[in-house]
Amino acid sequence: MQLRDIITDKERLFLEKDVPEVYKTDFSYKEVATVHAVALPNTTQEVIDLVKFANKENIPIIARGAGTGVAGSQVPISGGELIIDVHQMNRILALDEETMTLTVEPGVKLNEIQVFVESKGYFYPPDPGSKNSTIGGNIATNAGGMRAVKYGTTRDYVRELEVVLPEGEKVTLGSLNIKSSSGYDLKNLFIGSEGTLGITTKIKLKVLPLPKYKQSVLLAFHTLKDATNGVLAILQNGIEPTALELFERGTIEYSEKYTKVLLQSQKGEAYVLMTIDSNEEETVTRKIDTVESILKGQAVEIIPLFTQEEEEKAWLLRDNILVALMQFTEYEMLDEVVPINKFSEMIDYTKELQTKHGLKVINFGHAGDGNIHTVLMKEGLDEATWQVRRQALLDDLYKKVNELGGLPSAEHGIGIIKKPYLEKMCNPVELDLMRKIKNAIDPDTRLNPGKLF
Amino acid sequence: MQLRDIITDKERLFLEKDVPEVYKTDFSYKEVATVHAVALPNTTQEVIDLVKFANKENIPIIARGAGTGVAGSQVPISGGELIIDVHQMNRILALDEETMTLTVEPGVKLNEIQVFVESKGYFYPPDPGSKNSTIGGNIATNAGGMRAVKYGTTRDYVRELEVVLPEGEKVTLGSLNIKSSSGYDLKNLFIGSEGTLGITTKIKLKVLPLPKYKQSVLLAFHTLKDATNGVLAILQNGIEPTALELFERGTIEYSEKYTKVLLQSQKGEAYVLMTIDSNEEETVTRKIDTVESILKGQAVEIIPLFTQEEEEKAWLLRDNILVALMQFTEYEMLDEVVPINKFSEMIDYTKELQTKHGLKVINFGHAGDGNIHTVLMKEGLDEATWQVRRQALLDDLYKKVNELGGLPSAEHGIGIIKKPYLEKMCNPVELDLMRKIKNAIDPDTRLNPGKLF
Repeated sequence: MQLRDIITDKERLFLEKDVPEVYKTDFSYKEVATVHAVALPNTTQEVIDLVKFANKENIPIIARGAGTGVAGSQVPISGGELIIDVHQMNRILALDEETMTLTVEPGVKLNEIQVFVESKGYFYPPDPGSKNSTIGGNIATNAGGMRAVKYGTTRDYVRELEVVLPEGEKVTLGSLNIKSSSGYDLKNLFIGSEGTLGITTKIKLKVLPLPKYKQSVLLAFHTLKDATNGVLAILQNGIEPTALELFERGTIEYSEKYTKVLLQSQKGEAYVLMTIDSNEEETVTRKIDTVESILKGQAVEIIPLFTQEEEEKAWLLRDNILVALMQFTEYEMLDEVVPINKFSEMIDYTKELQTKHGLKVINFGHAGDGNIHTVLMKEGLDEATWQVRRQALLDDLYKKVNELGGLPSAEHGIGIIKKPYLEKMCNPVELDLMRKIKNAIDPDTRLNPGKLF
Repeated sequence: MQLRDIITDKERLFLEKDVPEVYKTDFSYKEVATVHAVALPNTTQEVIDLVKFANKENIPIIARGAGTGVAGSQVPISGGELIIDVHQMNRILALDEETMTLTVEPGVKLNEIQVFVESKGYFYPPDPGSKNSTIGGNIATNAGGMRAVKYGTTRDYVRELEVVLPEGEKVTLGSLNIKSSSGYDLKNLFIGSEGTLGITTKIKLKVLPLPKYKQSVLLAFHTLKDATNGVLAILQNGIEPTALELFERGTIEYSEKYTKVLLQSQKGEAYVLMTIDSNEEETVTRKIDTVESILKGQAVEIIPLFTQEEEEKAWLLRDNILVALMQFTEYEMLDEVVPINKFSEMIDYTKELQTKHGLKVINFGHAGDGNIHTVLMKEGLDEATWQVRRQALLDDLYKKVNELGGLPSAEHGIGIIKKPYLEKMCNPVELDLMRKIKNAIDPDTRLNPGKLF
């Protein structure tokens, strides 16, 4: 059997030289490795047949969705890979209101899920910045996003996964049962494994009732330090925000330029964009009043976003930071996370590194859960200087992350880009356990070779 | 090195014939296998030394806590085991209010954790029936309990685990970071693995702020069917109860006899004991009012438990069901779970089986999360008849559980008792994955041999 016998539509199969360039990159990383083929299956059976074909021919496999990853996880590096692009497996299959679950194929985009469930009165809380990412990719990296501080990450909303294993066997992991003490938790092992253990072909997601009321507030601060102090004050006063995003003026400016929209506040050096939701209108009002009274002295401006239009404007700016950076500048975006009580210290340290290494550093991030997207700006530097300074800065930065009990990636994954830092920061015994598991499930290193560790 | 060199206190080491009988049993299962020794370490280093000793001498190991398990997980079956009883590693080490985490040793009892954190204004939600169980055991079975319907199970409250691996290496899994996309999720793999992958020696638990208000209500129903319908009505109306326990009159009678206390309602065949909590007093009141108005026509009696004394009385009766059964009767308690929309059908079916097999069946369980503790009563039956009827009934029952998409164990674990049913109900590909992982991490089958699969 040949690939043409498995994927019979011409427009769903690209061979060697016909492979579009886009398949050699993601949003962060480009390789020049030659790809054997790109196949776009429509069904689980086609995925199985492709995996079995690759086993027979001894070809490595990379599963891919929207290609919006930022760690190089989907990029071919060993050469000769078969890329299985599942983005055409994009049907929303069922909403089961009795078990509050949504069944989808892996190529459905996050934004489509959010719009669909909200139209039915439900809520899918995970909210990564890239709304065009696929749910399959969100599962591969355990994507987090804006609302993790209150609602958790993708992991917390996956009830059941259908997975094709490295040799082409199909298995269902997890279930609709709310409790389980019936064997090893394989579902959580596969979530966040960056396509190294299996290819997700169907997912049952947990949805919640849509909260009845929500409101956002924009808080402007003189300094970044004032903003991180404000974040801690909000968390320590039991506000339980749905989202608590921090960004610097120097970060949001890119987004203003890209969207041609100005943020509601132009004062101060740093901002916190907060949302509160609840089923009780009074709870939303009371919490926002509390935040105003706590931060009155510390903030330059406190701007409640009363209309849906105002709220959408602020969140549009926040959501477009990454796309704007891609448009206007050369940069490297990080994804470090530290325990919440170390958040302020970590942010301060990135600014020390800016001075120490002569490399402009801006930050944005999910302040409520200690996840910082530090961005190193290449600006006018020549390639050689950039590489030297970048490397020295990264070495310092990840050393600090490690000292503070943090991790190299909160939600983007390790991929290729962060491999050396995972290896440095992770206990060798733990890394060895990961390798043993990889080897037990994928002894031929069929899936996504060279990624993660 | 001999065991006496590792555990030098005489009272912390029992050899062969001196091993107390209690170590050959748990709350459900007894074996006559000869135990090599029982050691009671005080430190992680002693656990490591014991595991290394067992490797050198090729002795299998069972880790044990309070011995309150009900699936035979801690019972020696192969003969010649070294039992490592961690119940003396029972210190509460630290409450960190900044990260809202509690650090404990594995031998700390659930009840001690609950009392300690509540005295500081915090809340540890998992609430298995056996308050004397150890936290190490709760982690080994991913124990659930009463409040899982709103707050989840033990898994959801473990931030970090220190584990001694099968060859004596120590590793820390998980972290204080709220998000992670930094390699495989090993923490969740170890939680619920029933001591087959490692021995937990230190735990960091997530705690929440203690909700300011709570109230319980006792609902009495004419029939079991009315009670399960009542449960569904409560869930479908968005009440989000903290606990939603169902029990039959025939079940709670054992507890009344044992505690010499009568339940506040003596009417009807079945009861639902519900708790609501919130930080807003009005929310509690409003939800209880809603339940009363929904169930006015269906319930025989609706009794709000206004005082702490009344509330404690009802919960004491609920919590003592298992102990009372152990005291007064011979029985087998099951732990099946089904998706919540199949709960009523499953409960009905247990009553059909009572008639079909001539074996008295009573139920209690965590109605809010589809977890039923069906109890088969031996009563006056001779051993041979009991075994034949019991087996036939179990075969039917688990077949139905499987058909409804359920699992053999929600929170007690598979141990020895449910092994044949896990093997029947679990997809062979999934079981094979579990075996591969066990073999990769514990190639000599050092830890808890013969359990789970």
